Amino acid sequence: MTTVSPVTLRALDAPGQPTPSADLDALYRGFERELLVPLWTEIGDLMPTTPTPRATAHRWRWSELLRLARRSGDLVPVGRGGERRAIALANPGLGGRPFATPTLWAAIQYLNPREDAPVHRHTQHAFRFVVEGEGVWTVVDGDPVAMRRGDFLLTPGWRFHGHHNRSDAPMAWLDGLDIPFAHAMDATFFEFGPDEVDDRSTPARSRSEQLWAHPGLRPVSSPGPSVSSPIAAYRWEHTDAALADQLALESAGHPGVVEPGHAAVRFTNPTDGGDVLPTLRAEMHRLRPGAVTAARREVGSSVWQVFDGEGRVTVGDRAWDVTAGDLVAVPSWAASTLAAGDRALDLFRFSDTPIYERLHAHRVAVAGQGQGKAPGQEGTAT
Amino acid sequence: MTTVSPVTLRALDAPGQPTPSADLDALYRGFERELLVPLWTEIGDLMPTTPTPRATAHRWRWSELLRLARRSGDLVPVGRGGERRAIALANPGLGGRPFATPTLWAAIQYLNPREDAPVHRHTQHAFRFVVEGEGVWTVVDGDPVAMRRGDFLLTPGWRFHGHHNRSDAPMAWLDGLDIPFAHAMDATFFEFGPDEVDDRSTPARSRSEQLWAHPGLRPVSSPGPSVSSPIAAYRWEHTDAALADQLALESAGHPGVVEPGHAAVRFTNPTDGGDVLPTLRAEMHRLRPGAVTAARREVGSSVWQVFDGEGRVTVGDRAWDVTAGDLVAVPSWAASTLAAGDRALDLFRFSDTPIYERLHAHRVAVAGQGQGKAPGQEGTAT
Amino acid sequence: MTTVSPVTLRALDAPGQPTPSADLDALYRGFERELLVPLWTEIGDLMPTTPTPRATAHRWRWSELLRLARRSGDLVPVGRGGERRAIALANPGLGGRPFATPTLWAAIQYLNPREDAPVHRHTQHAFRFVVEGEGVWTVVDGDPVAMRRGDFLLTPGWRFHGHHNRSDAPMAWLDGLDIPFAHAMDATFFEFGPDEVDDRSTPARSRSEQLWAHPGLRPVSSPGPSVSSPIAAYRWEHTDAALADQLALESAGHPGVVEPGHAAVRFTNPTDGGDVLPTLRAEMHRLRPGAVTAARREVGSSVWQVFDGEGRVTVGDRAWDVTAGDLVAVPSWAASTLAAGDRALDLFRFSDTPIYERLHAHRVAVAGQGQGKAPGQEGTAT
Amino acid sequence: MTTVSPVTLRALDAPGQPTPSADLDALYRGFERELLVPLWTEIGDLMPTTPTPRATAHRWRWSELLRLARRSGDLVPVGRGGERRAIALANPGLGGRPFATPTLWAAIQYLNPREDAPVHRHTQHAFRFVVEGEGVWTVVDGDPVAMRRGDFLLTPGWRFHGHHNRSDAPMAWLDGLDIPFAHAMDATFFEFGPDEVDDRSTPARSRSEQLWAHPGLRPVSSPGPSVSSPIAAYRWEHTDAALADQLALESAGHPGVVEPGHAAVRFTNPTDGGDVLPTLRAEMHRLRPGAVTAARREVGSSVWQVFDGEGRVTVGDRAWDVTAGDLVAVPSWAASTLAAGDRALDLFRFSDTPIYERLHAHRVAVAGQGQGKAPGQEGTAT
Repeated sequence: MTTVSPVTLRALDAPGQPTPSADLDALYRGFERELLVPLWTEIGDLMPTTPTPRATAHRWRWSELLRLARRSGDLVPVGRGGERRAIALANPGLGGRPFATPTLWAAIQYLNPREDAPVHRHTQHAFRFVVEGEGVWTVVDGDPVAMRRGDFLLTPGWRFHGHHNRSDAPMAWLDGLDIPFAHAMDATFFEFGPDEVDDRSTPARSRSEQLWAHPGLRPVSSPGPSVSSPIAAYRWEHTDAALADQLALESAGHPGVVEPGHAAVRFTNPTDGGDVLPTLRAEMHRLRPGAVTAARREVGSSVWQVFDGEGRVTVGDRAWDVTAGDLVAVPSWAASTLAAGDRALDLFRFSDTPIYERLHAHRVAVAGQGQGKAPGQEGTAT
Repeated sequence: MTTVSPVTLRALDAPGQPTPSADLDALYRGFERELLVPLWTEIGDLMPTTPTPRATAHRWRWSELLRLARRSGDLVPVGRGGERRAIALANPGLGGRPFATPTLWAAIQYLNPREDAPVHRHTQHAFRFVVEGEGVWTVVDGDPVAMRRGDFLLTPGWRFHGHHNRSDAPMAWLDGLDIPFAHAMDATFFEFGPDEVDDRSTPARSRSEQLWAHPGLRPVSSPGPSVSSPIAAYRWEHTDAALADQLALESAGHPGVVEPGHAAVRFTNPTDGGDVLPTLRAEMHRLRPGAVTAARREVGSSVWQVFDGEGRVTVGDRAWDVTAGDLVAVPSWAASTLAAGDRALDLFRFSDTPIYERLHAHRVAVAGQGQGKAPGQEGTAT
Repeated sequence: MTTVSPVTLRALDAPGQPTPSADLDALYRGFERELLVPLWTEIGDLMPTTPTPRATAHRWRWSELLRLARRSGDLVPVGRGGERRAIALANPGLGGRPFATPTLWAAIQYLNPREDAPVHRHTQHAFRFVVEGEGVWTVVDGDPVAMRRGDFLLTPGWRFHGHHNRSDAPMAWLDGLDIPFAHAMDATFFEFGPDEVDDRSTPARSRSEQLWAHPGLRPVSSPGPSVSSPIAAYRWEHTDAALADQLALESAGHPGVVEPGHAAVRFTNPTDGGDVLPTLRAEMHRLRPGAVTAARREVGSSVWQVFDGEGRVTVGDRAWDVTAGDLVAVPSWAASTLAAGDRALDLFRFSDTPIYERLHAHRVAVAGQGQGKAPGQEGTAT
Repeated sequence: MTTVSPVTLRALDAPGQPTPSADLDALYRGFERELLVPLWTEIGDLMPTTPTPRATAHRWRWSELLRLARRSGDLVPVGRGGERRAIALANPGLGGRPFATPTLWAAIQYLNPREDAPVHRHTQHAFRFVVEGEGVWTVVDGDPVAMRRGDFLLTPGWRFHGHHNRSDAPMAWLDGLDIPFAHAMDATFFEFGPDEVDDRSTPARSRSEQLWAHPGLRPVSSPGPSVSSPIAAYRWEHTDAALADQLALESAGHPGVVEPGHAAVRFTNPTDGGDVLPTLRAEMHRLRPGAVTAARREVGSSVWQVFDGEGRVTVGDRAWDVTAGDLVAVPSWAASTLAAGDRALDLFRFSDTPIYERLHAHRVAVAGQGQGKAPGQEGTAT
């Protein structure tokens, strides 16, 4: 049994507090009774000089994820209710919740041969990234989309979608969503669809690609800008070529790369040139053998997944060797650096940056390029 | 000591789970070891059919807030470190944190006669609303802004600001900020300024008003749109006149009110016509005597403060009688209704709606007007 | 009878032409037959190093306009067909067409006591500015709008509108439209309405003002941004106060004026902060006694009308003394300067700037501030 | 010698004029003296119920253009001063000026083997479309861009550009610019560059394509949206594939085509999803054999060029058989129809639509789909 109020106890840790007294304690008990909390005991936590995320940097090994996913394939059926055989990263700083960062969900999803994941829809935005394998089609609002190694696939919010494995091998991939953000924001709607996908055809290209995946071209029949990208699949052959082109330009002495030895492309919504989803940014990065990136801080969190090659990821004072499939969560404002090994290093990255950009709360600082400008200082919208 | 893993325990409450077994428990322990959590035990919490906020509806009495604020005025000095004598609403569903809702901070701030609150700046966006009293000037980036009854005052993110009470009476007002949102998003920067405001002059109008508070006019010298409104003070005389005009139009048979007997104006950024701050919407509402509003659900949370009159606020299955100064927190997607008593009822409202609108996650449903359209269904950006 | 082709003749004046010959002339005759014209004879006219407008700077005396308008009041009835007793400025460089500049229409409109101008609508955007007098109401989509000295009034495209004089005195005012632009662009639609306005009430304020002319406030009931401003009348009392405030700020050492002694406000659309009409910008300027503005060039044309005071307007190598009501047309890229006399000088200005800004073709150069940046050089949209 | 004023003469043709009299004629002479023109004599011309363009529909034969261009190749050198061997369409309604429509320039440009066109830049926006041939590189701000059959190539305003023919055959192509619009708007700046292009390398792909011509991908290194598309060349292989995909979707029963048998893609700016240039829209259309399009009216003018196949173009009450290279100018609001012959018909189209859309003056009416909505009626911006 405490003899002082919780607010008093909490104030013990805070600097610059009023002199403790019985009167003060009585005041604090009054706060408690009336569901009130003073700023002066909380300001250090709520208003730090720079972000102090509870989430921490962490590396997950793909080999372990895959091992446990396979075991889940043995023990856990996929069906109505559970909906998906997906196993999510749980950031060690976030209390055991399945949140890679405060805003981002990252999970391995696993489908046995000839298995179906039932159709549903939700307001959370989703994508898939395929580190290895093929054979699954995800059917998005009736459009069957083949999933193959290196592909980046979209399921924007509120589109019905189910998956089915048409091959005799299991398949695993990365799911990325804004589930933690939508959960924190109480903005989640969900609806069941049929238990099976309605179109079991297996075209190599989705209809969305036939309409939209031509460089710089749009169908005249389409209406104006859409909230999310209409391209259901960004194929590896295009991503790979774009990265190779940037490095070729660098070799020829022309601009294009982010920094020496570091090519990067962003997946975009062709209807407005912006991010693929309102809350999620996705990019592919390629480092030449031996290249090291400048340390970079950014408001907002991100997750990296190695696609090919080997290297080292440093976040703050921690560093991990990484290989294909490995995942690293990067908290807000943590300085991160990538280094390729003897081979080129390809990495997929997704982040919550669009949220900050749309709210004018984004700030970036790159080592050697000066401090990031505070968003409020700009004065003028961008 | 548990004999099963925490995931197993949690799964006990979830529907449609795989058959418990030693193998399954071993799998779940593997998840735990590798910092992983499966979707199938969590989906009910993470992906409900409609929002299920932890925050609850609650009413705080202004008389109690004011009583405790006065007592704080006796016991708690204002100065560097604690920064402000502000006492925040703590939503009963949010674990005792000083969060009115998951995104919104609402506090009573109290300044003794001749007292100063030191200068600082932060990326969190702030406003003040004055239910009663006058005599304090808030100095925002060097511009002294008088605070008077009914005024709505802005301190956009990253502007230096301090307050000083130039009168012989104490003064209390409502502070609104996006502190919980910025905290959850790890997007907080803070900087100390001088211990005292640098301009102690007491003009009736701020310089920002001289430049910007003329209807439909902007200075030619200003650059383009700004992220936040350049108007530091929205004066009660204008707000009152706008509400009266809407009701006069209704009496004359012309459109303008929100619904019968219900006038409402939104405070806007004159440089782009949008909300005053990137994360916060603010409005003033007036109900004719006896008027009752249609039940309304909205994704996102809000706080109402009665400014004048008496009435009744209903949120979900709870209802409170309210009088001047009383505050009510409304969680996401809760149905709320306002009812005026024998006199007209004036209410101030602020919400996090701009966040949802900018991310295309906003949804509204008004009783009698059909269900809200899901944001993902729109297809086309607005 | 010419013995050479018109193209040959035209080529005589152009530099760097191919050697004349019978073959060349035959070629040119072939062009003519096939409705073709070569670039090389025309490039000097079509692609000058800077704009070479055919329109010239010119000053019209209000006293003369008014004299002829009064005489028209005697001789020319207002009614269906002719529609308006409006007499337009015809720029001396534009071949006698009623075009103040290549894009802008400026006319004096005159209504006898108790006279009506019939209702119609057109896609051309219109405004009125009142140099003197009162007593007329313009009824815009059923909303009666009083016209008084100093007021700036809007009739956005495709709104039905008629005028009626309720007083026993005639009234004259300035009409501004984008008629020449719409004519050149073949974008004109027109429709007759009733022969008389349907609402002959005479309120001091229009309904549009009741809803929209409150600083920084908008009705919650209104939908999103509108193409044109919803404010039908910008009253002189507000414009005057805004200009006085800017000069007061300057006197107190604070920013706000355009340049020393020169205050200016722009009329804006409160729903988006932009110009009042898609094609027209309107501003009010005030010069302190003796103030002189820096010479300024701008792509696009404008018309100034003196509202109060006396002064001198210089455009290129021409200069005119001006007094209340006098109008000056300024062609594209002509350097212009304003100078006040012994009294303050108030001037109304309208221009076609929104067209250029929306097409990223705008360029400004102010003496002493360096050359204007070429629009194409920017690289990034604003 | 006229005995009445020009205004009086003009009034003879206008309906609803005041009774002629000596006084009226004196008034009209007064107008003339003061550089004034009344509305009532001009309103029929200035404010018609629907657009009444002076430009007319016309067809130019590519075979004739090419014949005259070749002859120009013999007689007219390319060099500084004349700048380009370009021969422009002169609309029969536009007084012999080199204007295909009031806003659009369309010309055949011709370069002899091994010939250079010197470097310059101008604010007018330009593109090239290649009906046949190859061998020329256009060098845009230092980036060499190969020109090949079916390619659509961009030279946005204010970029230095020159061309050089690296082959032993002459080459001709279509140039499209907004010269007439820029001329009417007095918005033209021009600057000479070097007499020869500085980079004579002959890569198959431009650097701009290496950076930008990957579907849905953008370089992370690039800044925000640009005013014009950064893609210098839209290659035929992509355009052809996109059109074929649309027809394949139609064959499979899925949406995508504009109307039955009619596929169409628009060239877009990948940084914002909008048109390639601020003033010009460009599209490629494909009709199945025998397909006929619905009659379509649109505010604004356009030019069609047949790329492949044969067919018939109808504009208003005129119709022409067309074959590869033939050009047709379509005035504002004229109803036009395309019909393919026995083979598929591919057509390139460019128009001034972005001007109207950005100014909210666009209106379209398609036979069988009801009248176009007037732009002013919308109320809400799009």
